[in-house]
Amino acid sequence: MTGLGEFALIERYFTRACTERQGVGDDCALIDVGSQTLALTTDLLLEGVHFLPHADPEALGHKALAVNLSDLAAAGARPRCFLLGIAIPRSDEKWLAAFTRGLFALAQQYACALIGGDTSRSVPVTNANAAPIWISITAIGEVDRRHYRGRSGARPGDDIWVSGSLGEAALGLAIRRGQRKIASPQHNEACLRRMDWPQPRVGLGLALAGLASAAIDLSDGLIGDLGHVLERSGVGARVSWLDVPRAAVFEQFDVATQQQFVLAGGDDYELLFTAAPEHRGQVQALATGELPLTRIGQIEAAPGLRLVDGSGALIEATLHSFDHFAGQD
Amino acid sequence: MTGLGEFALIERYFTRACTERQGVGDDCALIDVGSQTLALTTDLLLEGVHFLPHADPEALGHKALAVNLSDLAAAGARPRCFLLGIAIPRSDEKWLAAFTRGLFALAQQYACALIGGDTSRSVPVTNANAAPIWISITAIGEVDRRHYRGRSGARPGDDIWVSGSLGEAALGLAIRRGQRKIASPQHNEACLRRMDWPQPRVGLGLALAGLASAAIDLSDGLIGDLGHVLERSGVGARVSWLDVPRAAVFEQFDVATQQQFVLAGGDDYELLFTAAPEHRGQVQALATGELPLTRIGQIEAAPGLRLVDGSGALIEATLHSFDHFAGQD
Repeated sequence: MTGLGEFALIERYFTRACTERQGVGDDCALIDVGSQTLALTTDLLLEGVHFLPHADPEALGHKALAVNLSDLAAAGARPRCFLLGIAIPRSDEKWLAAFTRGLFALAQQYACALIGGDTSRSVPVTNANAAPIWISITAIGEVDRRHYRGRSGARPGDDIWVSGSLGEAALGLAIRRGQRKIASPQHNEACLRRMDWPQPRVGLGLALAGLASAAIDLSDGLIGDLGHVLERSGVGARVSWLDVPRAAVFEQFDVATQQQFVLAGGDDYELLFTAAPEHRGQVQALATGELPLTRIGQIEAAPGLRLVDGSGALIEATLHSFDHFAGQD
Repeated sequence: MTGLGEFALIERYFTRACTERQGVGDDCALIDVGSQTLALTTDLLLEGVHFLPHADPEALGHKALAVNLSDLAAAGARPRCFLLGIAIPRSDEKWLAAFTRGLFALAQQYACALIGGDTSRSVPVTNANAAPIWISITAIGEVDRRHYRGRSGARPGDDIWVSGSLGEAALGLAIRRGQRKIASPQHNEACLRRMDWPQPRVGLGLALAGLASAAIDLSDGLIGDLGHVLERSGVGARVSWLDVPRAAVFEQFDVATQQQFVLAGGDDYELLFTAAPEHRGQVQALATGELPLTRIGQIEAAPGLRLVDGSGALIEATLHSFDHFAGQD
């Protein structure tokens, strides 16, 4: 028994020589079908790992599909259809009605049809425990292969951009767990909403075709996810902490706490992407009042992530991104 | 809280008007991509539901993919690639090495590449319990749409065929659970092997293109799975119990016990298919010593399944096929 981390585990056991166009490692896998290309992604949502017990089933139905559509968005794919695997303790019709309401509302918004799946009763391994809810979704999108960007296309000099603002979803989780209290009911509500109802940036992902050189969706936190882009692109980056977009709610916290949520919090489901400086105007033109786009730094040739403060001085980052297998025995 | 069964549950909550070529209900969903057609299927394997705790990880890796390839076989699809979602209590490298050995051996046999996935640590919902292993695979195959058969193409007069022999896998489960004892070590071993190492009938599924009018893979037991074909085809059937192929091991049991395992046991992963009588010679020519093909009855216009004995008299069938949600509170 060892403490191999999630990404080392994938590298060691699940990466095989692959004749398909793209293999394990990007947000989506690509396969060519005739002259067309599909992007495929699969995400697990496990009670107690990815969502809290007694989570609102309508929000859960939304989120289960949203996190997959977010992967399609990162790949610049147009959602087409999805498959659902779900295991629940029993056929609780009230729960199912709410879950499918959330699921299909989002599916309809993107004309993404449920085409198949598998259902099962879940059981506890021993009789001592409640059976958990398990959800697995595989989403399929269509991608223009000429404009495909994975995580490996970032080049020195490229701008680094993020959509929306970061950290609120992670703060929402801390609020729900009772670890943080926020005086403002509006801020409180906004954080919980960001956590429960992530909005996949599908339109932005499509609009970035031909502009972005690399993209990833922010599910595990900015530092970790940017790290994947840097590693796969063989580059480094300089990121300005003051430029990283965050909500006003964070003003009440000290800087270390802010950084923990905003840079390493996870569950943002915003897009992080890189683009050459000559596309700066075109990228900025895609920003809206609802979804701002912010330049937070630049790709550099030297490996590693350099986080700098307002004066350009390096900030020692001791933040951890989420790893399902980190820190175990 | 009600006791809605698995298929009623799918019908009520997960069936939506679908613009895709085929929707929920067949072994695979079909999507057209340009001039080509893909078949997609997803299967869950949950510890304590679909496999026993402490199952041999190498066999489990094989079986997790095999049951998906079996769905592709039913649809007559050529396996192309798959995605894997897996949650395990911790990164146990010995377990992972064995699991992936079984998984990739079968994948290589069918040139079916792992193209992506998701890994997670699983946790118990309370701390009182061991965390279960949870596996979700989505398999993708290529199908010739001119020859596609789902479950709805059976026509009165068609022969009903099954591949291989039925019942041993279910008997293997009863042996492992200590519910049945078999004197012969060879028979014992054969039953456990059928349970642990199902062989997807991919070659047969492809060879039946243009011959079979409907097909399904036998995962839940002959009676239940044939029932799906009858229902979706709007027909009935007459099946001769004496013609249903079973291994010699069943001779030691009374008829009721034999029928429970052979007709309703589940986990056979053989193909059941229908074909017009004029194809009888061509179908029979596909049989091999290793994989016999047996005619067990005929499709009839009158709805319902009529099981008959050697004299043609009706057998009262009180057998139940597996339903994950049946019989609950």
